[in-house]
Amino acid sequence: MFKHQNLKTYKMSLLENLKWRYATKKMTGAPVEEEKVQQILEATRYSASSFGLQPYHILVVKNKELKEKLSPASYNQPQIIGCSHLLVFCIWDGITQEKIDAFTNDIAKKRNQPAEAVSEFNKMISGAVLSRTKEDQNIWSAKQAYIALGTALAAAAELRIDSTPMEGFDSAQFDEILGLKEKGLKSVVILPLGHRDSESDYLVNLPKVRRDLTELVEEI
Amino acid sequence: MFKHQNLKTYKMSLLENLKWRYATKKMTGAPVEEEKVQQILEATRYSASSFGLQPYHILVVKNKELKEKLSPASYNQPQIIGCSHLLVFCIWDGITQEKIDAFTNDIAKKRNQPAEAVSEFNKMISGAVLSRTKEDQNIWSAKQAYIALGTALAAAAELRIDSTPMEGFDSAQFDEILGLKEKGLKSVVILPLGHRDSESDYLVNLPKVRRDLTELVEEI
Repeated sequence: MFKHQNLKTYKMSLLENLKWRYATKKMTGAPVEEEKVQQILEATRYSASSFGLQPYHILVVKNKELKEKLSPASYNQPQIIGCSHLLVFCIWDGITQEKIDAFTNDIAKKRNQPAEAVSEFNKMISGAVLSRTKEDQNIWSAKQAYIALGTALAAAAELRIDSTPMEGFDSAQFDEILGLKEKGLKSVVILPLGHRDSESDYLVNLPKVRRDLTELVEEI
Repeated sequence: MFKHQNLKTYKMSLLENLKWRYATKKMTGAPVEEEKVQQILEATRYSASSFGLQPYHILVVKNKELKEKLSPASYNQPQIIGCSHLLVFCIWDGITQEKIDAFTNDIAKKRNQPAEAVSEFNKMISGAVLSRTKEDQNIWSAKQAYIALGTALAAAAELRIDSTPMEGFDSAQFDEILGLKEKGLKSVVILPLGHRDSESDYLVNLPKVRRDLTELVEEI
């Protein structure tokens, strides 16, 4: 827990972790311990999302043959093969009343409440979400998935596991190869987890560049 | 740094922090120290984004009169007034060649490279981004901003500052009140920072509900 008295000298561990990480371009192929992957997923599970709905799903691909099939669908970027575990963040392809009911029933169960206790909340979510077009629902779900992506990046960095958030892949091909249509899902962003190949990754020693705080933030 | 030998008993600080936080419904109005807000913003600045472009801007609203103007534009939800600092995550309203040039020039400067060293990268970004419609650019920028939102949530939690990610506000009214059009920005999500009012927040003692890991994640 944060100690108030050390405020000015306190090094926020999140900040240290984010400075350590970078979008790893070349991974060694060495495996990541299953316990660490589970910890990363567990932290990701605790991500915030609008209404708490978490309208997404995370596929974990370890299988070598499957990664080889996915490689050309991601422009043969070497992290697909070189990673240990490939996380595929998928959104629900459209949001249904059933999904919302399952969510609010889960709340009632976990909070030991009667169904009536969540019925207003259920109506609020349904009213807000089901009135949108499926396309707008999917954009909204993808934004929620990106919060989870941000959490996964921070979690991996805390465990000193390398990761590369990647949008550069053919989503339709991924959906086809992974059978996502049958599952009612669509891939939106992928995150290989592995170990940096410090010998041959051009980016490993380049300074991290972020917009200056004065450029990014404005107090009004 | 993570110690391998304690893997099974290691408590990931990110996970502990995320378990501590919740979408605070009522805040006390007490101020958050400026140093902490700066630390939250600094961590947020280190968020990943596609190409590293960070096509967003964060406004920090402390001014009481301004918060009172924004309150009806967010359905009078009490966090707008009850927070200490209101972070307004804004996207660039459209991405221009000038923005991309400024970004790659900044990289060259910070990495002490000649302009030619980033010209391929500049072309890659321009090719990928400027070919999209402005609407699609804005959706893409919003997703990047949501990664930053995820970072800000984790950062605030590490410092034991409460926060509430909120989509329930009238973006057009916010843009008007904050003069965002003139700045070429659009508000996409807001994050009040403050202190939970444990006496009167109905949510503070309710168990946090997240989808079970077996429901959220699938290994294939």
